[in-house]
This record gives sequence, C-alpha cells and structure tokens, in this order.
Amino acid sequence: MTQPLLITDIRLPDGARVDLAIVDGRFDAIYPMDDHNAHRQRAGWTHEDGHGALALPGFVEGHTHLDKTTWGMPWYRNAVGPKLTDRIENERQWRASSGHDAATASMALARAFLHAGTTRVRTHVDIDTDAGLRHLHGVLATRDGLRDVLDMQIVAFPQSGMLKRHGTDSLLDAALREGADVLGALDPAAIDGDPVASLNLTFDLAQRHQKPIDIHLHEPAQLGAFTLNLLLDRVAATGMQGKVVVSHAFCLGALPDAERDSLLTRIADLRVALLTTAPPSVPVPPLKACIERGVTIFAGNDGVRDTWTPYGSPDMLERAMLVGMRFDLRRDDALATAFDCVSSAGARACGFAEYGLTPGARAELVLVDAETVAHAVVSRPVRKLVMSNGRIVARDGKGIDA
Amino acid sequence: MTQPLLITDIRLPDGARVDLAIVDGRFDAIYPMDDHNAHRQRAGWTHEDGHGALALPGFVEGHTHLDKTTWGMPWYRNAVGPKLTDRIENERQWRASSGHDAATASMALARAFLHAGTTRVRTHVDIDTDAGLRHLHGVLATRDGLRDVLDMQIVAFPQSGMLKRHGTDSLLDAALREGADVLGALDPAAIDGDPVASLNLTFDLAQRHQKPIDIHLHEPAQLGAFTLNLLLDRVAATGMQGKVVVSHAFCLGALPDAERDSLLTRIADLRVALLTTAPPSVPVPPLKACIERGVTIFAGNDGVRDTWTPYGSPDMLERAMLVGMRFDLRRDDALATAFDCVSSAGARACGFAEYGLTPGARAELVLVDAETVAHAVVSRPVRKLVMSNGRIVARDGKGIDA
Repeated sequence: MTQPLLITDIRLPDGARVDLAIVDGRFDAIYPMDDHNAHRQRAGWTHEDGHGALALPGFVEGHTHLDKTTWGMPWYRNAVGPKLTDRIENERQWRASSGHDAATASMALARAFLHAGTTRVRTHVDIDTDAGLRHLHGVLATRDGLRDVLDMQIVAFPQSGMLKRHGTDSLLDAALREGADVLGALDPAAIDGDPVASLNLTFDLAQRHQKPIDIHLHEPAQLGAFTLNLLLDRVAATGMQGKVVVSHAFCLGALPDAERDSLLTRIADLRVALLTTAPPSVPVPPLKACIERGVTIFAGNDGVRDTWTPYGSPDMLERAMLVGMRFDLRRDDALATAFDCVSSAGARACGFAEYGLTPGARAELVLVDAETVAHAVVSRPVRKLVMSNGRIVARDGKGIDA
Repeated sequence: MTQPLLITDIRLPDGARVDLAIVDGRFDAIYPMDDHNAHRQRAGWTHEDGHGALALPGFVEGHTHLDKTTWGMPWYRNAVGPKLTDRIENERQWRASSGHDAATASMALARAFLHAGTTRVRTHVDIDTDAGLRHLHGVLATRDGLRDVLDMQIVAFPQSGMLKRHGTDSLLDAALREGADVLGALDPAAIDGDPVASLNLTFDLAQRHQKPIDIHLHEPAQLGAFTLNLLLDRVAATGMQGKVVVSHAFCLGALPDAERDSLLTRIADLRVALLTTAPPSVPVPPLKACIERGVTIFAGNDGVRDTWTPYGSPDMLERAMLVGMRFDLRRDDALATAFDCVSSAGARACGFAEYGLTPGARAELVLVDAETVAHAVVSRPVRKLVMSNGRIVARDGKGIDA
C-alpha cells in the first residue's frame, strides 16, 4: 500500500484545471482546482506539483513488433530487396546470424516506449517453424519483467504464413497455451494462397482458445476486399463481434467510395476495429469515413527500427503526428482525433481495461508542457512526468527504474 | 581574421575518418585521419575534437515561409476552414488582428533553423495589396541580422494572387528592387484565372530584374500539366534554363505514367527543379522517376507552425525523414537520397554557392552521433556542433549567440 498522492495544478485535455488524487495505483478523484479545497489539507498525502502542465492519458501502442527491433543495438545497415518475401527471408537470416535475442531487444524497446509515455502495448511476436516459440519466450520474459508498469498484449503471429509451413498452426496453438493473448494471422490469400482454409483455421484456433484475432491484411484493393468479406462472414458466424482487429487494411484506401462505405458499414456493425500506421506511401483506410461510420480506428508503429524498416519511434506522440499529417488534420479538434488513435481508440479496440483519465481507472498519465492536445502532438515535448499504475516511471525525459 | 581551426576525428558521409581544416570561414583541406600527420603539429591552429562524430554538410531549407510563422509565440489554435481561400483570408485577418510582426517571427524561426543545422534558407514572403512590402521589410531585417551565419534567399511571393488584386505586380517589382532575390508566383490558372497572362507577367518581371522564378503550383492533374507546359514554353523562350523552380507540382503525382515521364524529360532538359514537402495526404512528384530522368528534386517544410498548418519543424533531418517515409525509402543508400533533398540537391536547385563538405566551400557543417546518414535521418540526434561560415553557432543542441 503506497501513500496516496495528489497531483496538483494540471490541465486536462478539455482545458479544465484540476487536482488529481491517486490511491492504490488508481485515479481516485478529480478536483476542480481551488486553493481552498479541503482535499489539499488531508494528512498522509504526498503532493506533486503539476505546475499547470497538460495531462494526457498513458499512450497506447496498438501494433508493434518488439521481438524484431534493433533498438539499443548498433545501427542496422539496410540493404534489403523491395519484396515482402525479400524482407521475410532477410530477417530470418539476420536473426540466425546476428545472435539476435528477442528478450533483450524487446526489453530495450518496451522500456523506451514506457519512458516516452506508453503504458499499453499490443505486440505481434513471430511464430514460425524455424524459431518455434523462441521469440515468444523472449517477449514473455519482457512482459513479466515490466508487469507492474506496462500492460502488454502478445499476438502470436505467423510471419511466414500459416498454411505454407507445416506445423505452424500447432505452434500457434502452443503459443496461445503458453501466454499469448491474441491470435495473429497474415494475408490469407496473398501469403497463404487459400483464403477460406486459412481463415477457417484461424477462427477455429481462436474459438478453441477463446482468444481475439488480429490479422495483418496487406492484400490490395479488390483482393483485400474479397478476403475482408470472408473474414467478416466468419466474425458473424462465430459471434466474435468486438474481438477482431484488421491491421493495415490497405484495401480500404483503394476501393471505389460506394464499395468502401458499404464495407465500412459492415465492419462497424460487426464491431471489427482497424489498425493503421498511417503510412504515407500506400493507400490507407480513410480516417474520417471510418469514424463517421462508427468504425474504431487506432494507430501503431508497426516495426520500430528493425530489418524491415529504419523508421518508427517509441514516442507515440510522433505516431499521432504522422496520423495527423497522413489525413491532413490541421485544426486543433482534428488533431485531438489523431491523438485518440494512440490513446482511447487503441484501448477500446484492443480491450485494454481500466483505461483513461477518469476515477477508477489505473493511474497512467503523461505530463507535458503544451497548451492543447494538438500542440503536444506537433511539438512532442519532453515528458515532464510519466506515471503508470500509480508509479512515476520517468521524469524530464529520463526513465526511472523501480 | 580568425585563428585557423582543425576539427579532428570526424567521419564523412562516405565513411572516411578525417581531420578537417578551416581557414577564414572556408574548408581549407581534408586530411585522412592519421595521428602522425604533420597537419596536426602546425603552430597557431585551434583544435576541436570531433570524437568520431558523423559530419554532415549544413542543411538547406528549400521552401519555407518565415514571415508567416507563430514560432516562439503562444500556440495558435487552428479552427480554420478547409479551402485554400479560407486559409488565405484567415491569415490576412489574423495578421491584422494579432499584432503579428514578420521581423520578430522570422528571426525566431530562422534562428531555430540555424541552431538545428540549417545554413541556407529559401523563404517565400507574402507581398499583397493589403500589407504592401511590410512583411518583406521584416524578413530583410532578419536576413541582415543573421547575414554572417545564414544564407537566406527571399522570394517575393504574391500569396493572394497577382492578377486579381490590382497593383500586386508593381509591389513585386518594388520587392525585387528592395532586395528580394527571386520572383514568386502562384497557380496561374486556379488562382489568377488566366494562366497565359499570369505567366507572361511573371516572366516579364523576372527578365526585367534578371531574377530567378519560384512558382507555387498546386493545380491538380491535367490542369497543372497544362500550366506546367505553358511555363516550360516560357523557360525555353526566355533562356531561363536553370533559373526556375516549380514548388509542389502535385500534378506530377497524378498523371498517367507516360504523360508524366514525357513532362519530366522536358523539365530535365530545361533544367527546371522541383520542390516537394513530401506531403503524405496528396499526390507528389515521384522521387525515383524524377532522379532517373535527371530532374533535380529537393525539399522544404513549407509553412512551419503558422495559421495554415500546425506542422513543420526547423529540423531538416525530420523533413528528410518525411521524404524518406513518403517514398518508402528503407535502405541506407535510399535514405541518403532523402538527405540530398535537404542538402546538396537544395543547394543546386536554388543556386546556393560554395556549398558542401569540400575544400573551398564555406565552412558549414553539422556533427551528430550517428553511424550513417540514414541513421542520422531517422534518429534526428542532438546536434553536437553546428558551424556556419567557420563559426560555431550551436553546441549540444543549444544555440550560441555571436
């Protein structure tokens, strides 16, 4: 039982100046700021002066690959070919030859996320017939090591496809037994070559373990739409409404408006959520159309500085900025929507519990010097304070170890 | 006459470890690193230890609007409508009502650019019949104040159009007499409504003053291509090869490949350069196709945190990163091309003289902890040292005033 804490003089995203009481790792109450209030006079409370900083909820990284990163390692010189299969094969060779260890790599990056204000992470972990569950075991160790301060969901992800390499489904089954929270999947048509068989196997596995699904769908335009409809059929048939995320869904950026909108309506009805990294070089699901039709859309980095990509950052405010730029969001109210993609929408889509700047939720917040949420997104200021589960885990941009 | 300076132990972009001699504000010689070299023993030289840092040439901001920025001012809450005319009108009202002063604003942002490593800036300054030359005078004061450390080109830019507001051409004429270096222009069809008359007037003015042209061309697809061909006709007719920049040129991202490529060939033949901000939400001239056809393409922010846009940064490494992401450049060699857009290609396109990490050029460089140029672009590290004209203007991320 830690001492109760009062963070005084902070501004909420709506502009209200408040004091925030934290008891046993949870937000206990929000008090409008008033020097004469009795809540500041209570005995036994620690006070932390917010100095008028803007308080943001802890950030949500909705889609990354902690097990792939070179974060904290020497710079990886990328000379990889341009095809998806080039990148998959190159990575397998690099992992084999570099002495790469998913536990060390994922811990370095997970800590960087946390210290920059991210308190919830969904990470996809490669499961394949070469590596087996090795990467999963590494990331499970990181999750365990950070259990008190970082809420991590692990997706068992068949990076090399599920049908093409015999035995991958058994490994995914084992991964779900050993602690993976979500079943992953990858391009049932373009990679697996048999969308019906691939999706059936995925839904069977998920049903058997009562786990949600998060599928990487890179398939373009009409092919992607075909696969997406097959997937939605199975969401309806299995009663998995609210339990499925489609990551990337590039096809939704490349269909005629009418076809796209009717798909979006179906997606909304089945409470399937969409994850985007807001990549500037390919079509993406249109943010505004998604939100207007009631589809939850949220954001993540995808890989951070790995053999696939040199880009990515543990700063989710930067990802929010990239979302804002991708969809040309310029007004303050529009940029607040970009921030939602790395906070409340991500929590809702992934099912992260007890989230938000609200009494009863876990005490996770980030203090920054910024006038509005939009200002924080574009300026990405130093984190004055990061709190997770009631613990201060970073101050003035520097991590604090427990 | 300052003391000659030897910067020891730095790495050039090609990986060579060298010492760099600077005399009278210029690079004098590059010595392969060797402790026994006589150049380190000379009397009267100051030494600066580079500690193995990567040396980059000073950065080039190829297109910004220093006179519009709110940099250094309180956050501007953007609630502006979506149309080009909304933004033009909103800005005019804001400048009138906010007490905005182009001298103060441009100085704050120009210094931020300099301290982040930018030594050359091309800035477009609004000239219109409301403000007259007021903004120009403000930016001229900033240019004068930073003359010894920042090479600034001023473009006289008719932000509200040239033909529609009577007297704008006379103001542009006056601006070129009073110190503007380049004649600007804006959408001869979409804004001025008469592409032939608008372009004729622009080329006449430029010819009369013997000044280069830099035109904002936002016009879409076929309309933009039509205007662009009219412009190229006039480049050929006036002998202005090598003296014209087309900024944005969105149309080149939205034409059928064959039509686009034939336009690019013509652009290359006439030595017209293209400026892109690499915006993720609209079509852009394709970087690879431009370079393959010999077209110089370079980059800039456009506005930085002004009433038009909340985005933009004085860190040109960030712009290089956005260029890299826009064109999906992942390999180290490809990211070096993105860096060229904010360095050598920009200098070449704008005609910035005596540029580069080479003997005889002005001593402008940036030292960062990074293994390769690509690493610097994606990590945007603290600037360990920024030198301009042989003067150290920033250290460890902090500006040093003369």
